[in-house]
Amino acid sequence: MPLAKAEISRLRALREKKHREAAGLYVIEGEKVVGELLAAGCPLLEIYATAEWIEWERGRPRPGCAAAAAPLQIIPISPAEMARVSHFPTPAGVLAVGRITRVPLAAGALDHGLTLALDGIQDPGNVGTLLRLADWFALDRVLLSPDCADLFSQKVINASMGSFARVTVHTGPLAEALAGTRTPVLGCDLQGDNIHTLTARRDAVVVIGSEGRGLSPAVAALVTQRVTIPKFGRAESLNAAIAAAIVLDNLRRVTR
Amino acid sequence: MPLAKAEISRLRALREKKHREAAGLYVIEGEKVVGELLAAGCPLLEIYATAEWIEWERGRPRPGCAAAAAPLQIIPISPAEMARVSHFPTPAGVLAVGRITRVPLAAGALDHGLTLALDGIQDPGNVGTLLRLADWFALDRVLLSPDCADLFSQKVINASMGSFARVTVHTGPLAEALAGTRTPVLGCDLQGDNIHTLTARRDAVVVIGSEGRGLSPAVAALVTQRVTIPKFGRAESLNAAIAAAIVLDNLRRVTR
Repeated sequence: MPLAKAEISRLRALREKKHREAAGLYVIEGEKVVGELLAAGCPLLEIYATAEWIEWERGRPRPGCAAAAAPLQIIPISPAEMARVSHFPTPAGVLAVGRITRVPLAAGALDHGLTLALDGIQDPGNVGTLLRLADWFALDRVLLSPDCADLFSQKVINASMGSFARVTVHTGPLAEALAGTRTPVLGCDLQGDNIHTLTARRDAVVVIGSEGRGLSPAVAALVTQRVTIPKFGRAESLNAAIAAAIVLDNLRRVTR
Repeated sequence: MPLAKAEISRLRALREKKHREAAGLYVIEGEKVVGELLAAGCPLLEIYATAEWIEWERGRPRPGCAAAAAPLQIIPISPAEMARVSHFPTPAGVLAVGRITRVPLAAGALDHGLTLALDGIQDPGNVGTLLRLADWFALDRVLLSPDCADLFSQKVINASMGSFARVTVHTGPLAEALAGTRTPVLGCDLQGDNIHTLTARRDAVVVIGSEGRGLSPAVAALVTQRVTIPKFGRAESLNAAIAAAIVLDNLRRVTR
């Protein structure tokens, strides 16, 4: 059955944040990324795929995937239909729709475990890379300020390499979330404590600002320990994801 | 004097590696990046700029810039000419031409100091970020395998944030360069020694492969110590620049 025109419009519209918010749905395209989400057990609502992808998917193991217990509901569509839905110069063989779920941050949640808080990170590649870091270092949660790149955009999900489906993310004003916590709040700075002298902290929040603008004043005011990555040469700064990686490695070195 | 048609073609052609190699020149466009190169004392040959940029540049201090001793030779061009030369959707106000210099790697050079060797890193953003890391950690040199993104491309130079002008880079086959050295060669691996147990090494080479393909077999065979970044969660891997950042921070922690 060919895809109705309205259906094509609906799927295309989900590329834009406002339409995603209105529908409560996101769309993601591409063999690699959809494969990563399926492997991570991401509960996708609809999958549109060409015959070629369906053939390939049937022969593929899906280890550790909760959703795989139920057979995957796939809507076959033609390459021509995919070309109309796709936003890629070369349309992919598969496109999936998922439900946007927003998990509210429970009161006192930041008091336990390790949290990465992203303050105004607008580059979607950076946000995706930071989700991947949170996954690698097994952080308990990630907080995104509302002006970060949208979690449900193709670029963020792509760059997370599947970690999108494994990391708990809360979106909301950071200053509000941090205001009540008793947990140390670590912020990167050029004049803080040497990160190599960090002591073990079972509970901590690491806040990362954008490379260009740093932390917003309201968030900077809530930082309880400023930490610095020792610099030996002349580069002025480090990219946000690079800085986060070094801080988290140092934190995990002392906090197992 | 308006820019000759041949001159416009020549400048446009320098966007392509083969034309850069033939002319021995590279071209770089943009207020931010040209400003970074000037600030770093990069010896640029020609600068083409609009009246607006020239006005702005005259009022700007250029600290620590060797080339600034001589007054900068700037060729004024109109915004319309800039639009014809530019490869950007919105043409910048300035464009510079520099000479490609290739520094041969002296015999025994790797025996002294810290070297970062990049094996087949094709993403120009990653190569630029890795140059910036080499600059931050004050490494003595960077080696690029010939299949890395071209050092003299706009994207590499942009992503390096000025470090392009501060880091010594040699391009050539890595296996050849590494074959004769007595210096330990560290390579990242999933089954190596925990990077947190690294001991001080005044001289070392850190080899970084591409995320997708890892180290090439000839380079992997020359690694003398495999090191691993401890993983706590479920992300499968880390991006090449992220991995390099963590390894270099750990190396610098013990090697001052």
